[in-house]
Amino acid sequence: MAEARRRRARGGAARTREVLLQAAAEVFAERGYDGASVDEIAGAAGVSVGSIYSRFGSKRNLFRQLMTQYMERDLIRVRDGFAAGPEGGLRALDDLVQETATSRRQTLLDAETWASAMRTPALRSLLAEHENGVQSAAAALVRRGRAETGHEFGVPDDELAVLLTSLFHGLCRQHRLDPGSVPPGLYTRTVTALSRGLAEQAAGADRPGH
Amino acid sequence: MAEARRRRARGGAARTREVLLQAAAEVFAERGYDGASVDEIAGAAGVSVGSIYSRFGSKRNLFRQLMTQYMERDLIRVRDGFAAGPEGGLRALDDLVQETATSRRQTLLDAETWASAMRTPALRSLLAEHENGVQSAAAALVRRGRAETGHEFGVPDDELAVLLTSLFHGLCRQHRLDPGSVPPGLYTRTVTALSRGLAEQAAGADRPGH
Repeated sequence: MAEARRRRARGGAARTREVLLQAAAEVFAERGYDGASVDEIAGAAGVSVGSIYSRFGSKRNLFRQLMTQYMERDLIRVRDGFAAGPEGGLRALDDLVQETATSRRQTLLDAETWASAMRTPALRSLLAEHENGVQSAAAALVRRGRAETGHEFGVPDDELAVLLTSLFHGLCRQHRLDPGSVPPGLYTRTVTALSRGLAEQAAGADRPGH
Repeated sequence: MAEARRRRARGGAARTREVLLQAAAEVFAERGYDGASVDEIAGAAGVSVGSIYSRFGSKRNLFRQLMTQYMERDLIRVRDGFAAGPEGGLRALDDLVQETATSRRQTLLDAETWASAMRTPALRSLLAEHENGVQSAAAALVRRGRAETGHEFGVPDDELAVLLTSLFHGLCRQHRLDPGSVPPGLYTRTVTALSRGLAEQAAGADRPGH
C-alpha cells in the first residue's frame, strides 16, 4: 500500500514537473526571459510560487531545465533517425528545421532567449553550454558514421559538428523570415554536398603537388 | 554665392543624416526596436523630434534606412573583395563574420531586431525584404563567378545565395556564442567545399546510371 502510494506520488510529481515546464515555455516565449516572472509561471501552471522554488531552485535553473528538455527531445529524434542510417538521420534534421521554424512558440522562445543571452553573460554561458551539448552529440554521430561507413570528412569531428549546427540555425532563421526560400530537403542536400566537398578537398590536399 | 550656400547646406544635411543614423543605431541597439523612442533618438543626436519626422517620416522608416545603410556598407565590402577574384570575396565574407559577431552594437542590434521581427509582421517583412536584397546581390555575384570561371554549382543561383547567407548568419550566431569554435577562414573553407560538393553532385546526377 505504502509502495503504491509512493508510486502514485512519484507519478504526480512527474506530471506536475511536466505541467510546470509547459507553463514556463509559454510564459518565457510570450514575455522573454527577463520579462517572465516565477509568479506568472506559477499562476499559469496552477501551483504555488513556493512549489516552483522547491522544485527548481531559481528562475534560471527552471529555464535551464526547459532548454535541456527541448535539447534532449530533439537529440532523441535525430538519434533515432540516424539509427536507421545516414539518410534517416538527415531527414530527421530536415523535419526539425521545418518544425522548429514554423512553431510559433519555439520561434518566440528562441528569439527572446537569444536577445536575453546577448545582454546577460550568465544566460549566454547557459546557451553556449546547451549548444555545446548538441555539438558533442553531433560529433558522436559523425564519429559513428565514420566508423560504420569508412567515409572520412577531412575535418575534425568537432569542426564538422559546428558546421552542421550553424547551418541548421542559419536555415531555421531563413525559413522563419521567408518560408518559401527553404524547400524541404535543403538541409540534407547541403550537408551531403558539403561532406562530399570536404572529403575531396582533404583528399586533394593529401596528393603531391596540391 | 547662392550655389556655394546650397552646396554647404547639402553637406550639412548629409552630415545631420549621418549623425541621426548613428544615434538611431545606438538607441535601437540598447532599447530594441519597440523600446526605442524617436524622442530619445532625437536627444542622442541633438536634433528636434520634428527634424527626424520631416527627414524620415516615421520610426519604421528610420529603421529601414538604417538597415539599408548597413546592408549597403557590407555589400560594398564584399563586392570590392570579389572584384579581386573569388578568394578575395570569400575573405571579405570571413572578415565580416568575425567583425559582425564581435561588434557589441551589431550583436545587440541584430538580436533586438530579430526578436521584434518575430513578434511584428510588418517588421518581419522589412527584414525579409532586407535579406532578399542581400541574396539578390549574392546571386548576382554567383552568376558573375559562373560566367567568368565556367564553374557550375549544379543548383539555382538563388538557392545557392540562400545557402551562402544562411551559413553566414549561422556562423555569426555560433561565433557570438562561442568565439573559439569559429576559426578565421571557416566560412571560406566551408563555402569552397560546399560549392565543390554541389558541382560534383550535379555532375554525378547527370551521368547515366546515377
